[in-house]
Amino acid sequence: MAAEEGQWVLMATGRSPTNIAVIKYWGKRDEALILPVNDSISVTLDPDHLSATTTVAVSPSFPSDRMWLNGQEISLSGGRFQSCLREIRKRAQDVEDEKGIRIKKEDWEKLHVHIASYNNFPTAAGLASSAAGFACLVFTLGKLMNVKEDYGELSSIARQGSGSACRSIYGGFVKWCMGKNDDGSDSIAVQLADETHWNDLVIIIAVVSSKQKETSSTSGMRDSVETSPLLQYRAQTVVPNRVLKMEEAIKSHNFESFAKLTCADSNQFHAVCLDTSPPIFYMNDTSHRIISLVEKWNHSEGTPQVAYTFDAGPNAVLIAPNRKNAALLLKKLLYCFPPQDNDLSSYMVGDKSILSDAGVKSIEDVEALPAPAEMKTPSQQFKGDVSYFICSRLGAGPKVVTDESLALIDSFTGLPKGV
Amino acid sequence: MAAEEGQWVLMATGRSPTNIAVIKYWGKRDEALILPVNDSISVTLDPDHLSATTTVAVSPSFPSDRMWLNGQEISLSGGRFQSCLREIRKRAQDVEDEKGIRIKKEDWEKLHVHIASYNNFPTAAGLASSAAGFACLVFTLGKLMNVKEDYGELSSIARQGSGSACRSIYGGFVKWCMGKNDDGSDSIAVQLADETHWNDLVIIIAVVSSKQKETSSTSGMRDSVETSPLLQYRAQTVVPNRVLKMEEAIKSHNFESFAKLTCADSNQFHAVCLDTSPPIFYMNDTSHRIISLVEKWNHSEGTPQVAYTFDAGPNAVLIAPNRKNAALLLKKLLYCFPPQDNDLSSYMVGDKSILSDAGVKSIEDVEALPAPAEMKTPSQQFKGDVSYFICSRLGAGPKVVTDESLALIDSFTGLPKGV
Repeated sequence: MAAEEGQWVLMATGRSPTNIAVIKYWGKRDEALILPVNDSISVTLDPDHLSATTTVAVSPSFPSDRMWLNGQEISLSGGRFQSCLREIRKRAQDVEDEKGIRIKKEDWEKLHVHIASYNNFPTAAGLASSAAGFACLVFTLGKLMNVKEDYGELSSIARQGSGSACRSIYGGFVKWCMGKNDDGSDSIAVQLADETHWNDLVIIIAVVSSKQKETSSTSGMRDSVETSPLLQYRAQTVVPNRVLKMEEAIKSHNFESFAKLTCADSNQFHAVCLDTSPPIFYMNDTSHRIISLVEKWNHSEGTPQVAYTFDAGPNAVLIAPNRKNAALLLKKLLYCFPPQDNDLSSYMVGDKSILSDAGVKSIEDVEALPAPAEMKTPSQQFKGDVSYFICSRLGAGPKVVTDESLALIDSFTGLPKGV
Repeated sequence: MAAEEGQWVLMATGRSPTNIAVIKYWGKRDEALILPVNDSISVTLDPDHLSATTTVAVSPSFPSDRMWLNGQEISLSGGRFQSCLREIRKRAQDVEDEKGIRIKKEDWEKLHVHIASYNNFPTAAGLASSAAGFACLVFTLGKLMNVKEDYGELSSIARQGSGSACRSIYGGFVKWCMGKNDDGSDSIAVQLADETHWNDLVIIIAVVSSKQKETSSTSGMRDSVETSPLLQYRAQTVVPNRVLKMEEAIKSHNFESFAKLTCADSNQFHAVCLDTSPPIFYMNDTSHRIISLVEKWNHSEGTPQVAYTFDAGPNAVLIAPNRKNAALLLKKLLYCFPPQDNDLSSYMVGDKSILSDAGVKSIEDVEALPAPAEMKTPSQQFKGDVSYFICSRLGAGPKVVTDESLALIDSFTGLPKGV
């Protein structure tokens, strides 16, 4: 069938990971193209635990582009969605699928798409859902439209949806090169090493309960660029040196250097937020307590046992060099932040087997945990201040989902399943 | 009587204010001499509300130097006390009092002193008690020993006790000039304007409840100097410009400029603390909520209604341009932070008459306060998160207390009264 012939629906489904920056992106030099004021480096998280799944469908029967996020229809009128759709459509090629559907390169401009996307983690938890979402949108649209461009080019398109999305185009360790060109053509992500390069790293995320409405990162970084006297100094003088050292630490599996740079750069990003007018506070007292716990432990051992980093919210992302340290960390965290409702199984998601490594199999085991030795007595406990923990690891980049039962759009109606 | 003749006790009593920096001092270039990395500017607070009172006594019967703080004997062996005692003794002159006690210049080196000091506010509340204390010690020792040096010289001696103490030697608006000399001789405080220059300013301090043990400012600023990549940039590039603007704002009673500089500099000081390794957190969630309240109000009015500044602790120092704004502020603060035990009279100390200005005379009035209009609904209340408020104003510098009944040392025993 040619595009004009029938009421067919052609679909593609992809899954993309989220990522967490260890050298932070904060500040744009171009708002429309999303060009940053400095390079950044991230680790890609295992998509089994934190990812977006997106189905894109095309049909001559669709009168307009539409999108649903986690089952709710959302507007596509924003400039960022429009940039991604435009840039991918521009690169669309002839498509012929095995069922005989044929779409010519020039037909794509006339056809509309339906997009359904779903995050396997709470969107509101502030875990870079837009990074996974825009990377997945661009990757999956590219598959549907038979786009031939390389991943660097795709990362540059995803960047125009959400800056950090460009880093979710690869697995493992990823660097977003800020680039120099005014058109943003060299502001792309590159993979420093894949997820197998340093695969004993364990990531524990503490999803911190928060009552405060947070400043969006888009408006926050705009305010920082306009008002923080420290931001440009950070971008121009501090970060370039840290990026070089971080690349070296990753290459040589130097956890001490990796941890020191990760913690220092997270803290400096939040320092710049505080130096903004009005000041931006993403971390709260719980975040501060987690940092204090880690810093005291690292200090008492004389060398970093675990690294921490915080994005634009209060959640702690903790990176351990191995399962042993991750289990030790978890015991300290569970002592300080026992589960509110005494339900351990919903309190640890992702790789739950870390609980066995920590020797914690029941709520009674949590209650029997000793106070961390390096903490001053009387050590305090803050039940309910952490909503839950996620245990994860480094993961791979975007992938096509071939199992059609996992598609989010009904191939007959062209609408999201269950809507 | 000459010094060698009898068992007399000669005493002097003084009272010195505390001060709060509006351009912050954070970082020493010389640890022993306490020489700062940048100029700072402060306002001196009314000693009726926040001050140290110190009695110094000398007698040939005292076998050693001793000191009592708030009734507890403390060690004088620290280098800072020793520096102040040494520098003042060096400048001692002949003394002859009206009762006939005569001490020759050269006798002071052989005589020992007893020092009793008392703060009229909680030492633990983190309200610059050491600034008031060392200023008072130096001022009162100088009176006892008939020291002829000018206030600039005295400020330089007080500086060696506690850096910010040098600014408590004057009332009103005070600048601590960092100086250039290696010996610290030009690192002195100067008065920019006395307390009558801008006397409609009203100061409300929120003493914030804190369970955390705080990092001392001495060790905190040492860590910042050694580890914060942003500190030197702040000291060398940002602060000099702010000092000039702040002097101009004070001179011209420009509250808008004064408030913007005060808030921005407080936030930048805390940003440098966060940029330190390990990071230092002096503000907590309550501090953040007070900032947010002020920022929203200032934003909604389009021009600053009140300024905030935080020292090395969670307490908010709020500066209003007049009683009207102070009363409006107080109503918002009382709505958000109602008293834990419903006792209004102990919840507002200092100038309690501000409660009448705010139309709040009873706990029922507090309960009837409306939510601040500029806050998003549902606006939250945080009972118990503020311990109490102090309402104050700008005040004068150190003064001799002539009423002998107010002396803290018994002139017969030479020991603190009531010990």
